[in-house]
Amino acid sequence: MNNEIKVSIVMGSDSDMPIMSKAADILEKLGVGFEMNIISAHREPDEFFEYAKNAESRGIKVIIAGAGMAAHLPGMCAAIFPLPVIGIPMGGGALNGTDALYSILQMPSGIPVATVAINGGANAGLLAARMLAMSDDNLKAKLVEYKEGLKDQVVAKDKKLKETGYKNFTK
Amino acid sequence: MNNEIKVSIVMGSDSDMPIMSKAADILEKLGVGFEMNIISAHREPDEFFEYAKNAESRGIKVIIAGAGMAAHLPGMCAAIFPLPVIGIPMGGGALNGTDALYSILQMPSGIPVATVAINGGANAGLLAARMLAMSDDNLKAKLVEYKEGLKDQVVAKDKKLKETGYKNFTK
Amino acid sequence: MNNEIKVSIVMGSDSDMPIMSKAADILEKLGVGFEMNIISAHREPDEFFEYAKNAESRGIKVIIAGAGMAAHLPGMCAAIFPLPVIGIPMGGGALNGTDALYSILQMPSGIPVATVAINGGANAGLLAARMLAMSDDNLKAKLVEYKEGLKDQVVAKDKKLKETGYKNFTK
Amino acid sequence: MNNEIKVSIVMGSDSDMPIMSKAADILEKLGVGFEMNIISAHREPDEFFEYAKNAESRGIKVIIAGAGMAAHLPGMCAAIFPLPVIGIPMGGGALNGTDALYSILQMPSGIPVATVAINGGANAGLLAARMLAMSDDNLKAKLVEYKEGLKDQVVAKDKKLKETGYKNFTK
Amino acid sequence: MNNEIKVSIVMGSDSDMPIMSKAADILEKLGVGFEMNIISAHREPDEFFEYAKNAESRGIKVIIAGAGMAAHLPGMCAAIFPLPVIGIPMGGGALNGTDALYSILQMPSGIPVATVAINGGANAGLLAARMLAMSDDNLKAKLVEYKEGLKDQVVAKDKKLKETGYKNFTK
Amino acid sequence: MNNEIKVSIVMGSDSDMPIMSKAADILEKLGVGFEMNIISAHREPDEFFEYAKNAESRGIKVIIAGAGMAAHLPGMCAAIFPLPVIGIPMGGGALNGTDALYSILQMPSGIPVATVAINGGANAGLLAARMLAMSDDNLKAKLVEYKEGLKDQVVAKDKKLKETGYKNFTK
Amino acid sequence: MNNEIKVSIVMGSDSDMPIMSKAADILEKLGVGFEMNIISAHREPDEFFEYAKNAESRGIKVIIAGAGMAAHLPGMCAAIFPLPVIGIPMGGGALNGTDALYSILQMPSGIPVATVAINGGANAGLLAARMLAMSDDNLKAKLVEYKEGLKDQVVAKDKKLKETGYKNFTK
Amino acid sequence: MNNEIKVSIVMGSDSDMPIMSKAADILEKLGVGFEMNIISAHREPDEFFEYAKNAESRGIKVIIAGAGMAAHLPGMCAAIFPLPVIGIPMGGGALNGTDALYSILQMPSGIPVATVAINGGANAGLLAARMLAMSDDNLKAKLVEYKEGLKDQVVAKDKKLKETGYKNFTK
Repeated sequence: MNNEIKVSIVMGSDSDMPIMSKAADILEKLGVGFEMNIISAHREPDEFFEYAKNAESRGIKVIIAGAGMAAHLPGMCAAIFPLPVIGIPMGGGALNGTDALYSILQMPSGIPVATVAINGGANAGLLAARMLAMSDDNLKAKLVEYKEGLKDQVVAKDKKLKETGYKNFTK
Repeated sequence: MNNEIKVSIVMGSDSDMPIMSKAADILEKLGVGFEMNIISAHREPDEFFEYAKNAESRGIKVIIAGAGMAAHLPGMCAAIFPLPVIGIPMGGGALNGTDALYSILQMPSGIPVATVAINGGANAGLLAARMLAMSDDNLKAKLVEYKEGLKDQVVAKDKKLKETGYKNFTK
Repeated sequence: MNNEIKVSIVMGSDSDMPIMSKAADILEKLGVGFEMNIISAHREPDEFFEYAKNAESRGIKVIIAGAGMAAHLPGMCAAIFPLPVIGIPMGGGALNGTDALYSILQMPSGIPVATVAINGGANAGLLAARMLAMSDDNLKAKLVEYKEGLKDQVVAKDKKLKETGYKNFTK
Repeated sequence: MNNEIKVSIVMGSDSDMPIMSKAADILEKLGVGFEMNIISAHREPDEFFEYAKNAESRGIKVIIAGAGMAAHLPGMCAAIFPLPVIGIPMGGGALNGTDALYSILQMPSGIPVATVAINGGANAGLLAARMLAMSDDNLKAKLVEYKEGLKDQVVAKDKKLKETGYKNFTK
Repeated sequence: MNNEIKVSIVMGSDSDMPIMSKAADILEKLGVGFEMNIISAHREPDEFFEYAKNAESRGIKVIIAGAGMAAHLPGMCAAIFPLPVIGIPMGGGALNGTDALYSILQMPSGIPVATVAINGGANAGLLAARMLAMSDDNLKAKLVEYKEGLKDQVVAKDKKLKETGYKNFTK
Repeated sequence: MNNEIKVSIVMGSDSDMPIMSKAADILEKLGVGFEMNIISAHREPDEFFEYAKNAESRGIKVIIAGAGMAAHLPGMCAAIFPLPVIGIPMGGGALNGTDALYSILQMPSGIPVATVAINGGANAGLLAARMLAMSDDNLKAKLVEYKEGLKDQVVAKDKKLKETGYKNFTK
Repeated sequence: MNNEIKVSIVMGSDSDMPIMSKAADILEKLGVGFEMNIISAHREPDEFFEYAKNAESRGIKVIIAGAGMAAHLPGMCAAIFPLPVIGIPMGGGALNGTDALYSILQMPSGIPVATVAINGGANAGLLAARMLAMSDDNLKAKLVEYKEGLKDQVVAKDKKLKETGYKNFTK
Repeated sequence: MNNEIKVSIVMGSDSDMPIMSKAADILEKLGVGFEMNIISAHREPDEFFEYAKNAESRGIKVIIAGAGMAAHLPGMCAAIFPLPVIGIPMGGGALNGTDALYSILQMPSGIPVATVAINGGANAGLLAARMLAMSDDNLKAKLVEYKEGLKDQVVAKDKKLKETGYKNFTK
């Protein structure tokens, strides 16, 4: 396993940590080096610019950015950082995360953000890993193994259903 | 009338011009000095930062920022410029402007944007004028006069209705 | 600090108090004089008209109006009071505050309301202060200081994350 | 037939005329006396208050109020006029009339507005007539006759379908 | 006070009782005679038809019908009963009552339903009373008195606010 | 091919014909006997009841009902007719067919409607055919053949793309 | 009662069990043979294809498929299995089940899915039974009896209301 | 420039071509080898499985999949192909592309799709290029150059505005 940091996870507020930590857990499980930051494009624009401008030269290959409400962090990362940015819309609030979704997804032509589901922390981690696996056969093998694990869980659930019957399934 | 530039109108794309020019028309009509810029937070982040950082020292008192889709321009202005920022969500597109609305309105606590209706160019100009009128009695008088004009238009329409009857009103 | 009352906070129902008090807290913190009222445009239209008509002559420079559901209070204020009106849509109810949002934001051309996020009490207070700071350098300095405070909070959170690691962050 | 004016149709803008005139057409057809006004609660609040306060003493039994966007006219009528107010949300605009719908329908407890479908001008007229028919058997008979007419139209369409076959129906 | 039953309250399911009883409470308070029924257009169409067809001959002047989800009860009442039908969309469920709202409000031309807010039980009762007050001055006087009571409540809240200050208001 | 009428297509208004005729075209192509009616649950409730009550005894196995806005026709059919009812929400109108969708789909427990996509006329016809094919091997074979035809169309399109290149594809 | 398995219930995740078991309960009550499976189109596409391809030859007449979020299971079943597929959108999540609804309902022309209400497990079971009853008079009789039971429940609730009065109804 | 095919563009229907060709245009401009296919997961599931299973062994590094309505193509690709899948929701239809958006974005945990804006063809191409640029410095340089071009366009527009004034800008 390579400890080199290739993925930078960034969030605008520490309230996003429960979702963002799912991305971190996946990367750790797959042996992908990552860092984690709390940086706000709104509350500290200078610090944010510094971060986004230097990310590539520090060896970062992918940024995973999560934010809620009028979520500008992923899009502003993508405006500055030249490699892929993955955006995670945070759920909750009066609009249940559709505000964050639209603010992240609907980027104008020229500046793409790879958006995952509302609260999709784990999928953001997996997507970053898939991107790195494009040039890393070892990581690709781990991803295939991970998918086998997902299948095994479903098969086990189905086996349990056949054994217990649906009426006793959740008891 | 004072020609000093106090309002900076900024848009991310020249496709926003038909809406943004309504704000300019109102300001011109009320004798408020303004400038107009096309600057994209996404496509030229350095130029944008420069603009937002220098606006106050150039004497700007209010920024009117319009943008569509994942509209980050108003919120990023408000993150840097310390005085009021008015945001205009552009209509159109697959989501009819609700994406721009949410991206502008739903700012996190600490960084306010004064949002007007979707495509609300004229109201943005009027809102900027109302803000300046807080310390400018001459401008306030013009705003009161403007409102009288609105009333007169409605009264004239009602008078026409009474004269023609509704069946002939739109003929 | 100047005790003169420049901002009038008004709400249609005392159930809006938890949100409206956030605006008051900000104004108090920044040393801006304000008053607070419970007045309903629907339940006491005469009293409301009286309030809106007299606000300016009493020295009010900005009205912050909050309301829920079919929220008419901010728009009716803006129809009568000639200076800026800030509207706060209340969340909750069957439509989660989108009813209040649309009722406040979508004002027809001629009568602007400066709308903030659903439940955006604190941002309404900050926006009022930014408006007053257009002609008050002392207040502007306080706003810049306030923004520094926001930055410091984020920096402190990031520092804590670096020290504890994300797994222990929320423990 | 009695020519006494019992229904007051009011709209905030003459752009609402195509929808509002459908209400007038129905009332005329049923022989119900009505008047029609263009009065804006936003652009001429004093004139509006005058109108709403005097309606009852002028013998008006029902108000039909139509408005678009942040539609405050029906709700403000209901706040002042003590008898039924029927609200018609105007379609169109960036939000397709859902803004007007929410602004009219979601009235707080205590102040009801009888809301009809978006652009539902004809149904507003029929609803006003049904209300008057509660104490007018002659009008009730006309309403029953009107409903018979609706049935006859459907029966005729079905008969045509049976005769022509569906492939030739719209040719 | 007249005990004659003029309003028929009907709901499709007893789960709607908490909302429907608010309409009943208002009518009782205003001394309007009413009846209350649980009848389902979907689960007992024959019984429903019987009910809707006989309502007028039993002296019913207004029907208040509440229903949730694909709410057909108010619209089917309006298709059969010739006098006003007031529809109350029930909140809750996966779509928070927007399904019931659309199913009740968006009636086709010819068959109006007077729709009130989602969960608007009290306003439905008040609207029925306003309709009856069109030809009942005694009831109209009660409605005016009721509205005075609403005003008094707001005034009392405002007085308390002035006395306690906003920080102690909710303590 | 059997000419016996097994499917009854019904619509509330002849404006639904362009969508409903797609269902008819599919049934004709597959050799399934059908009838077509224009019957309104709202405008002629007695005729509608008669229709729905007699459908089964006339040998109808499936009803395909289409309606727009507050679409009650499919649900009322399902309340009376004991075999499957397929509902087609009509698009268009101020709410683009979401009103019809919710009014048809969100049936309460006990009374199911098999809902297809907004404007999904062809799929309604295919779904009716799939239901009949549960006990008709000849029809099932035709459906399999139909699906082969769909595949062949896609394959042909792909072949054309490979031959022309994407730049010339739509020329 | 015939024990032959004619309905296959399938869900993508065991978290869907509370809803899916309602379909099973209905089928059991009506004496319709069914099986129940946990199979994921996303996590085990090979197993899923195997299942969908073999269903018909195993004697399955209807598939009831439930899924949440980007719900592909019902549509992919309908793409492979030639007889009716009933889709149940799971509620919950950030979008309250509208994501699942759109993913199931909005199938392209050619591949129908019979969609029921969000969380409509019981109606899915009833719809499957109605389909089987098209060629099974015994089952049809049971469905009619089931509907009588629904009526009896409503009648009993109404009787209780008449006896207790609405104020004591829920006590 | 390397002609090796690394990106596979796939769409479910040739009606998606105008959007999908924008992705192709970007890739061609950046010198990235790609192929283009019309394959339907719904209409030819066997062919689709074959395609998705073989993509990786054919050297494909990224799939760009576009689809409308209940858009299953991107998600089913991601279920089978182990490297990144980019999904483009097609606009249009009764739900304006929100159906496709939800069907593509809201993938369950374990199977990520990198979603771009509704109709975001160009951004899908750019995102694929950014992914490939993670291990290709030459391509990264082209992307930086592309971004410079975007800036130059905005600068030119702003220059024109300064020269012509806003009133003549669009003439």
